[in-house]
Amino acid sequence: MTSAAEQAGGPERKGERTRRRILQAARRVFGRVGYDRATVRAIAAEAHVDKSSVIQYFGTKQQLFREAVAFDLEVDALTVGGDPAASAENYLRAMLQRWAADPDSPMAVLLRTSLTSEEAAELLRRHVTTEAIDRIARRLEGPDPRLRAALAGAIMFGITTHRCVLRTPDLAGVPLEDILRLATPLIRVLLAPPENPSA
Amino acid sequence: MTSAAEQAGGPERKGERTRRRILQAARRVFGRVGYDRATVRAIAAEAHVDKSSVIQYFGTKQQLFREAVAFDLEVDALTVGGDPAASAENYLRAMLQRWAADPDSPMAVLLRTSLTSEEAAELLRRHVTTEAIDRIARRLEGPDPRLRAALAGAIMFGITTHRCVLRTPDLAGVPLEDILRLATPLIRVLLAPPENPSA
Repeated sequence: MTSAAEQAGGPERKGERTRRRILQAARRVFGRVGYDRATVRAIAAEAHVDKSSVIQYFGTKQQLFREAVAFDLEVDALTVGGDPAASAENYLRAMLQRWAADPDSPMAVLLRTSLTSEEAAELLRRHVTTEAIDRIARRLEGPDPRLRAALAGAIMFGITTHRCVLRTPDLAGVPLEDILRLATPLIRVLLAPPENPSA
Repeated sequence: MTSAAEQAGGPERKGERTRRRILQAARRVFGRVGYDRATVRAIAAEAHVDKSSVIQYFGTKQQLFREAVAFDLEVDALTVGGDPAASAENYLRAMLQRWAADPDSPMAVLLRTSLTSEEAAELLRRHVTTEAIDRIARRLEGPDPRLRAALAGAIMFGITTHRCVLRTPDLAGVPLEDILRLATPLIRVLLAPPENPSA
């Protein structure tokens, strides 16, 4: 695990590398056994460091978990011209691509652990509400902006979970563009102001 | 736990009750700690029976899991006049109501455990494919019937998970009818034959 670059680094850079290695090990362990069953001891073993190093860098298991699953949904950066409806494809593409790139990404680990741990569910609930629903809803016109933003998020998580985590064959075995072509219009309709409320 | 009716039952009825009690205990334990970490010993303790009784009734942990999370999606019964698009509200309402009625239902436990266990993911994948996607897709007109059916399922699971398991406040705190009003048209569009393919 020790590269030439690592050997060349000073004490601060070595500390950063150890921190990063512990965070990566934590994501693997939390993702595998869930929040409640993961132990600092198991994470230390996975990272090839002493248990005391984990405590020194992160304090408690709860604090380590929070750092390990911290991620930026980047809703503002993905929102084109301040228009969430026009950004539907951006949102869904980003979520599907990030997840496919790393099944142990902070977002993926948080979602997987959230279904078997109230601690993780609470973190995800709060994060999605403040980082996605709040940011999208305040830009929506028409009734029920918060509910429409929340539904859009739930739908994108559902598609991502089935393609990337459960790997349902009919979703995992098709090109990304086919999914975007069929699913983007649905999310766009949800986020666009209703043109004909009586429809 | 022993009712008058239970005391009055013969040996066969007592056996059925014990079986049911073990299955209920199994769902609670699997739902709480996941498939991999659940033990026959812990399930026996939760059900207040001997470990040997669990083995006698169900054989292995794997067989017990399969029975504990067996459920019928009832896609055929929920499909109105053989038309999946017209049945979109039925599908979504049934899923949301069943989950709300029992967070330890077989379907809920299977979904929760599926994100941290390949054994559970494989069961869910196969069940959703044969019981939902196959049954809906063969009734769809137009291109990509399997992908459209799979997306509809993933979307419904996403909404149900966020409302009933994660309890995202903006989804958990609204009446069921508000969710159906906004989400049903999206699923209907996905399942209806495309009227204007160039749109």
